[in-house]
Amino acid sequence: MTREPSVIGGCRSEQEYRAVAAATALPAWAVQQKGHGHAGTAMALAPLAHTLYQRVMRHSPRHPEWPGRDRFVLSAGHASLLQYVQLMFTGYGLEPADIAAARTFGSATPGHPEYGHTAGVEVTTGPLGQGVANAVGMAVGLRRERALFGTPHDPTVWAVAGDGCMQEGVASEAASLAATIGMDNLVLIWDDNRVTIDALTDEAFTEDVRARFAAYGWRNLEIEDATDLDSIEKTLREAKLRTGAPTLVSIKSTIGYPASSSFAGTPKAHAGAPGADELAGILAALGFPAGAGLETLVDDAALAFGRSAIARGEELVREWDAEMRSWGDSHPAEAAEWHTRRRGEQLIGADVLDGVAAASGDEATRVANGRVVNALAETGRFFGGSADVASSTSVAIPGERFSNDHPAGEFLRFGIREHAMQAVLNGIALIGLDRAYGSAYAVFTDYLRPALRLAALMELPTITIATHDSVAVGEDGPTHQPVEQLASLRAMPGVDVVRPADSAEVVACWRRMLGSTVPTALFLSRQPVRQLTAAVPDLDANVARGAYVLADDAHARLTLLATGSELQLVDAAAAQLRSVGVPVRIVSAPCLRWFDEQPDAYRDAVLGSVPVLAVEAGATQSWWKYADDVLGIDSFGVPGDGATVMATLGLTQEAVVQRAQRLLGLTLPT
Amino acid sequence: MTREPSVIGGCRSEQEYRAVAAATALPAWAVQQKGHGHAGTAMALAPLAHTLYQRVMRHSPRHPEWPGRDRFVLSAGHASLLQYVQLMFTGYGLEPADIAAARTFGSATPGHPEYGHTAGVEVTTGPLGQGVANAVGMAVGLRRERALFGTPHDPTVWAVAGDGCMQEGVASEAASLAATIGMDNLVLIWDDNRVTIDALTDEAFTEDVRARFAAYGWRNLEIEDATDLDSIEKTLREAKLRTGAPTLVSIKSTIGYPASSSFAGTPKAHAGAPGADELAGILAALGFPAGAGLETLVDDAALAFGRSAIARGEELVREWDAEMRSWGDSHPAEAAEWHTRRRGEQLIGADVLDGVAAASGDEATRVANGRVVNALAETGRFFGGSADVASSTSVAIPGERFSNDHPAGEFLRFGIREHAMQAVLNGIALIGLDRAYGSAYAVFTDYLRPALRLAALMELPTITIATHDSVAVGEDGPTHQPVEQLASLRAMPGVDVVRPADSAEVVACWRRMLGSTVPTALFLSRQPVRQLTAAVPDLDANVARGAYVLADDAHARLTLLATGSELQLVDAAAAQLRSVGVPVRIVSAPCLRWFDEQPDAYRDAVLGSVPVLAVEAGATQSWWKYADDVLGIDSFGVPGDGATVMATLGLTQEAVVQRAQRLLGLTLPT
Repeated sequence: MTREPSVIGGCRSEQEYRAVAAATALPAWAVQQKGHGHAGTAMALAPLAHTLYQRVMRHSPRHPEWPGRDRFVLSAGHASLLQYVQLMFTGYGLEPADIAAARTFGSATPGHPEYGHTAGVEVTTGPLGQGVANAVGMAVGLRRERALFGTPHDPTVWAVAGDGCMQEGVASEAASLAATIGMDNLVLIWDDNRVTIDALTDEAFTEDVRARFAAYGWRNLEIEDATDLDSIEKTLREAKLRTGAPTLVSIKSTIGYPASSSFAGTPKAHAGAPGADELAGILAALGFPAGAGLETLVDDAALAFGRSAIARGEELVREWDAEMRSWGDSHPAEAAEWHTRRRGEQLIGADVLDGVAAASGDEATRVANGRVVNALAETGRFFGGSADVASSTSVAIPGERFSNDHPAGEFLRFGIREHAMQAVLNGIALIGLDRAYGSAYAVFTDYLRPALRLAALMELPTITIATHDSVAVGEDGPTHQPVEQLASLRAMPGVDVVRPADSAEVVACWRRMLGSTVPTALFLSRQPVRQLTAAVPDLDANVARGAYVLADDAHARLTLLATGSELQLVDAAAAQLRSVGVPVRIVSAPCLRWFDEQPDAYRDAVLGSVPVLAVEAGATQSWWKYADDVLGIDSFGVPGDGATVMATLGLTQEAVVQRAQRLLGLTLPT
Repeated sequence: MTREPSVIGGCRSEQEYRAVAAATALPAWAVQQKGHGHAGTAMALAPLAHTLYQRVMRHSPRHPEWPGRDRFVLSAGHASLLQYVQLMFTGYGLEPADIAAARTFGSATPGHPEYGHTAGVEVTTGPLGQGVANAVGMAVGLRRERALFGTPHDPTVWAVAGDGCMQEGVASEAASLAATIGMDNLVLIWDDNRVTIDALTDEAFTEDVRARFAAYGWRNLEIEDATDLDSIEKTLREAKLRTGAPTLVSIKSTIGYPASSSFAGTPKAHAGAPGADELAGILAALGFPAGAGLETLVDDAALAFGRSAIARGEELVREWDAEMRSWGDSHPAEAAEWHTRRRGEQLIGADVLDGVAAASGDEATRVANGRVVNALAETGRFFGGSADVASSTSVAIPGERFSNDHPAGEFLRFGIREHAMQAVLNGIALIGLDRAYGSAYAVFTDYLRPALRLAALMELPTITIATHDSVAVGEDGPTHQPVEQLASLRAMPGVDVVRPADSAEVVACWRRMLGSTVPTALFLSRQPVRQLTAAVPDLDANVARGAYVLADDAHARLTLLATGSELQLVDAAAAQLRSVGVPVRIVSAPCLRWFDEQPDAYRDAVLGSVPVLAVEAGATQSWWKYADDVLGIDSFGVPGDGATVMATLGLTQEAVVQRAQRLLGLTLPT
């Protein structure tokens, strides 16, 4: 092959050209082989990705977990080949055959980048917009690391987003927040290719993106020539300067470049096989022989150039090791704390909870939780905030608001941006030095659901504190009264939905949550509830099993099961039933998933060999697996004071007694 | 009392001043009485709302459903007193006592405005950001009305948003879209009060909102003095000019004005009682006597001024009636169609489906649905589009893209904005002249969930077409493979989640859906499925009951129940079971909610008096109510081709047979 500077410029050697040309051709080749996949963006941005991985990013392919590395986030996750090709060339463990195997079952190169599956992939992306917000969270986590510990590294987060990401609300929320908190260690590269799946962007996306980001407070840079490595490098180097503001780098690319104009620059280049003719044209344009296969595309020269990144990465790590030793010597306390908090360990031990006072009387579980949050915050390892309802959700803590001006700030004000909040938590959790939490009203967990799903998929132990957890919130009415949120989050794989019944259960739930490796949605009452569980023997162990017998009776004819604020309801109903000669058992069930994980014998013992009536002020769907009848709410709430609303919707002691009666076929004395 | 022009300027009479002063004081008075609620914004924007309702908006209090009216959307729904006070003054049916009863159970004045509950409330708001997007949808519906029929009215949509709405992603998405499609009949009034619940906006929201909207393509206007009616009126009149772009009107208000500076302009004014001292100060500032009660605040003069809107409204309707008669005479066909399509009737009759061809062989249900969509689109009464996946979701139809330049366009390109899409559909449905539909991948229904919840709460018959409805989507991997979406949407009150099994069921489901008055989420397969139901007698009636017996057997030992693409799985498993001497029944269950609504006798008959095994490629949670065992997927998907993924996750004929065997305690011949 011969070097074709007219197609890709700025290469410093024949070898470099070969690497970039191969990176450009490989996506087209791989997608043509498979008949499906996304080649166009991976082709068009190959020079950009090459420049990032070979010239600009500080990274070390043989140490993908190196704490000093820059982070790369492919928010436009469908263009996964863009990243896989660079991970292959730079030596993260992928080989050319892995590119050929893209999108096949069991491959290291699935359709979208998956965190934990492919070395060098920092975050699972695909649902558009999420990566932008994750990158903001990573920038927060890294900025905080430097502020708290004075570590000698100051990594930059590089995110690549397409027009799709830019249209999604979660990215808008996160971008506005990033500027407010001044995350100047964040560079967002916007692939301005003017093409989406259905059409050119002038049919659905005509805004001036650069002006929008300027309005948020971002710095704007532009890559003049998307096909010239030097042009790209110049802008990216400027982008990583610390200026107090995040930087948007626009790159006008032609999707599918260098295919013919009947393909490149059109929606056809977004997904699907280019066709044999287009592939031939692409190969010819890049200087490859007709019919070039994997070995020709990725020849020894190209691979050798690409893998030179390994040695450069090793050198970076060596330098960093020396700096870290020096830093450790001069900052022994910070270094000890930093090492302790490296990801993988339990960041906060349950002993922190020992000093949290129990409630002496009726108290909302959100209030009890507020004491826990304050105790956790004192560790300095618990970091997050609220979507503008810190006081209502009882997560207000003393200290400073986090920003670039106060990077060791104790909490973050997310603004009224629930979706970005959860996605930013995901980013903070990916950096891994803090246990990340956020808070919102329970009904608005709907807004953050897509980001929580990704936390679950990545197994990130974020904590989403959801208060005002039933229709008992009252006056704000049905728009603010959760009904289906508990059930709908329980349907989501990999999320622990936790709903403690009183202050003792709040603390006991946290003991298990602190050791958890998956995200938790913690549901808490707005209204005060009675204290019922403080005297339970081995409460921590019982709660950790998800459900346990609160009150047993050898002659029980019925098991009443409840969660959260409804435990007091079944407790009262149980007393009434007992008083008329119907002995019952009471089961408290703060977390259905924890209970699901228990052995059959435990679950059978808890449920008992009598009919089970489950009671929860929410959609009934969750409970039929274990209950013979469910008293819940399968309609929307109504406006009014909480007690009246609960009574109107049938969540009363009397209703529990009547349902029990019906279930047992009894007629009780009136 | 004496007129205090220094507090509120531009009043043209003592009576007008009394009305505005009362509108300003009433929220503070009502919230102080109750001890809870949101007074600050309702006070600060009282002059704005007064000017809108008394001077600018075309409306008729005695005809709240008048088709020619402007629409008012209070996106900042917590400030509901702002609207209630104007509805009371202008004569929509509320009386001063209703203001006093705000937020009490059963009142006409609930915590947030509720559509269908209070005359004059156009849309239920409260979840922030939604109203902005609903307003965009209303503007679309009204622009389309004028284009299709040439009706003589050209209403303006007026929306009021606070900083909270402006931070939510759904509003950003909708604002970008509104400019792209040029909705110049939309005026969004941004209450720039720099205060949210937790803090001043400089802690979480520092962007330049006006510049952001300019970047979208909006026109920017500003009200110079939020306390001067003439200043407000001047800007609002300019705002309603048709210029080809939507208009943002900024109004710098002081939340809680005219309270003292220790309250007004601070987060304290956002919610909660102002306290007796502040209330006294507010009353004094406005010129009311100390301790003024409801009768003093709303005296005869104020009420007389306010209710003068009734006569003006009657005159507007009279003029309009004449114009409509003239229009009807000259446009009889359009007028007939317009009258037919007025809200409340079934917009599209099921006979439209008669010509939809059945599939002759294996076919994806999304493809069958594509034929339905095209047939419905031919009626001209079916309007919507896709979040940039029209081809994949098979909703592509012939015609022009809707915009201000093509207001009779056949479809809307929503862009990659699922959340705004659903909220815009809600707005179109509120105008009510089109059956509104949108489409996205099933997994991304998570993004639009908060807007769908409001469609359900308002009982708007939107159709959300969700294709690629199981892990069988394959190569795109777990981020694109729905698992919990079916179950989690079934948990939502008031949404019909419909999942037909083949092309005949697709058509049969639509027959019921066309008559529905609630939102539908229609789940469709990406992959081809076998045709199994075409020969079922009375298929339409059977499907309309939500579940029905597809294959009966008098000696059945088991009922196999399935939805969608899993019906072919249980059909094959049933054959295998029968072949080894285990007779089984097969139940197809396209909509669980429709089934829930059936009489016990029907449901019992369908399920049979034998064990029930439910099979669905998704979270099992939905089915335990009716099934003894459930074969489903309670973990995330995996990347790979669809068939391998289904097999890996245990959704195979063999697995169905084994689960059946286990349920019956059988050992089958191998």
